[in-house]
Amino acid sequence: MTQQHKSRRSFVKNLSLGIGSTAILPVLSSFQDLNEKIGRTDRKKLNIALCGLGRYATLLARSFVDTEYCNLAGIITGTPSKAVDWKRRYAIPDANIYDYGNFDTLKDNPDIDLVYVVLPNGMHKEFTLRAAAAGKHVIVEKPMAFTEKDCEEMITACQKAGVQLAVGYRLHYEPNHLEIKRLGQRKVFGQVRLIEVSLGYSIDDIDPNDWHLKKNLSGGGPLMNLGVYCVQASRYVLGEEPIAATAQFGPVTKPELYTEVEESITWQLYFASGAMATSTSTNSSGVDRFFASAEKGFFELSPAVSYGPFRGRSSHGEFDFPVINQQAAQMDGIAKVILAGKQLPEHISGIEGKKDMKVLEAIYTAAETGKKIFLS
Amino acid sequence: MTQQHKSRRSFVKNLSLGIGSTAILPVLSSFQDLNEKIGRTDRKKLNIALCGLGRYATLLARSFVDTEYCNLAGIITGTPSKAVDWKRRYAIPDANIYDYGNFDTLKDNPDIDLVYVVLPNGMHKEFTLRAAAAGKHVIVEKPMAFTEKDCEEMITACQKAGVQLAVGYRLHYEPNHLEIKRLGQRKVFGQVRLIEVSLGYSIDDIDPNDWHLKKNLSGGGPLMNLGVYCVQASRYVLGEEPIAATAQFGPVTKPELYTEVEESITWQLYFASGAMATSTSTNSSGVDRFFASAEKGFFELSPAVSYGPFRGRSSHGEFDFPVINQQAAQMDGIAKVILAGKQLPEHISGIEGKKDMKVLEAIYTAAETGKKIFLS
Repeated sequence: MTQQHKSRRSFVKNLSLGIGSTAILPVLSSFQDLNEKIGRTDRKKLNIALCGLGRYATLLARSFVDTEYCNLAGIITGTPSKAVDWKRRYAIPDANIYDYGNFDTLKDNPDIDLVYVVLPNGMHKEFTLRAAAAGKHVIVEKPMAFTEKDCEEMITACQKAGVQLAVGYRLHYEPNHLEIKRLGQRKVFGQVRLIEVSLGYSIDDIDPNDWHLKKNLSGGGPLMNLGVYCVQASRYVLGEEPIAATAQFGPVTKPELYTEVEESITWQLYFASGAMATSTSTNSSGVDRFFASAEKGFFELSPAVSYGPFRGRSSHGEFDFPVINQQAAQMDGIAKVILAGKQLPEHISGIEGKKDMKVLEAIYTAAETGKKIFLS
Repeated sequence: MTQQHKSRRSFVKNLSLGIGSTAILPVLSSFQDLNEKIGRTDRKKLNIALCGLGRYATLLARSFVDTEYCNLAGIITGTPSKAVDWKRRYAIPDANIYDYGNFDTLKDNPDIDLVYVVLPNGMHKEFTLRAAAAGKHVIVEKPMAFTEKDCEEMITACQKAGVQLAVGYRLHYEPNHLEIKRLGQRKVFGQVRLIEVSLGYSIDDIDPNDWHLKKNLSGGGPLMNLGVYCVQASRYVLGEEPIAATAQFGPVTKPELYTEVEESITWQLYFASGAMATSTSTNSSGVDRFFASAEKGFFELSPAVSYGPFRGRSSHGEFDFPVINQQAAQMDGIAKVILAGKQLPEHISGIEGKKDMKVLEAIYTAAETGKKIFLS
């Protein structure tokens, strides 16, 4: 684990240097034509189709320019006007543009290697299963699905289809997060005793029809969409799974919006090492902080979980890591492994997503019942 | 409330300037003889006897030099060697040195105006009642007692005796805390939605016989001794009382030490405004942070609750308040009011201590029962 971690870290460091070089050599880039720059014809790149063209897909699309191993090869969208716009903007060939109806014919398209599912949470499972059936590798955004059982089904389907299943854990490639993982797992300041990690945004201007507010599309409120990062950080900093959870739904300040999902939630995770993690995820105010206190020191990030740039420090002083394109680093990290014909490491795979989902389910059950829920 | 708050703030600013002047003018001070410097003969100062000469009493004793209105006039101690040491160190007259046996004869000593009770928590009530019976004003350290009922009894006893009862809330005179109180109560960034405030120390080297570990002397673990600051901050930043509490005892990592009191505890307070506060108090690792997220911004302190110096910032930028002697500011703040023959403001009185105690009791009940406890 330690050695694996080390080489991953070195890789990211090299990668971020690579990105830096691109950024300071724009003149060289400008000599290349668009196709060559995007690398569509280069078989050393993984040809990715984005499925679902919302806000985050746009962020991903803009990140391809910072990747070395990824090519925005296709799109899948239910909105014809988006197809027109994206086709023009990213020079997507007509043959690589799909809608949800003809999605399954992807199986006949050798120019798409991987489908990146960026749909509302409630569509993750269906489109992961359909992509696998079409013989395509999958990256699915987090949260991976609604239940541990769903995750299991998705993992099995991909295994049977002989494709790989990754989860969009961008922070697994981010140097500040690799550092807090190192500090925690290697016990640099001794055993971590307490983690406080919270993520929230004040989204007062949200459209009442936004999918995040609909249980069947989102699976829940901020726990599903933001809290998953806090659960992730708690798990990878400690390097262990929680053995129990308690949780509390927060106050409802906008009852007209929060009829189906929680507006905010707090929870506590308990670990066999004696560590605990406390978190809040909320839609009613902004919070973006990670803090870990260990036997002999502390380390923290603030901002911590958003798209950055992050600011970190420990008992030993300020962090000084390069600001990277998180989405590019994640896609490249996954693509490099798949292109090499290797198996994705577990921490970025569906297995990791399933572990998160087990914890998220326990948190919801704890909040609903008011009881401490033990995770076997 | 607003106006009162403002004048208090101005007072503290002036006060801290005064302290600064003392610090940079040591030569002038050195011309005065010890008695004059301590001001024992100056009737414009409040003559204070410290009751209980532990670590915090030492810190208080050293702070008298930074006060304008306080005189360390006497001591009450159960340890004869401490009496000898303190008599010499602080030039305490024999007539003003008491033990717990002859404590009640304080009533015959006109040279003591106030007894500052710095004993273990479990002795706060008894010595407050005895000081009141002796006709002395009282400052009692926090937590004021073990139960709301105890606090009520102490308040009534002091009222009947015609003496004032203050609680040692040092942070009520600290400029960073006055600022977060202002930002919260005046809704400078809109309504506060979320407060995260935690205080903990890693006390691995604690003597197993330390009174903090004994239920009958401490009344509880870190909630009583550290958590009270978090409850305080939540209450004065929001300017309202919690309507409910949930709480969870944390993991026990040192079962040999924590047989009577909790090693750590987390809790959540819910307020009618829709705000919530989440906190951890622990003896197993260091944490000292306050963070408030409001509708349109945030404010935070880190370090936040210890003896400082504090570091604060808000959405508008870094705080830049003078570092003050917290203990001197608190004692002077109380002494000034008493010397003027006025009533102590409620926020520094026994009434405030009783409000905290009600919340602490609810937190313990919530942790013990696993239920949400509603505060009427």
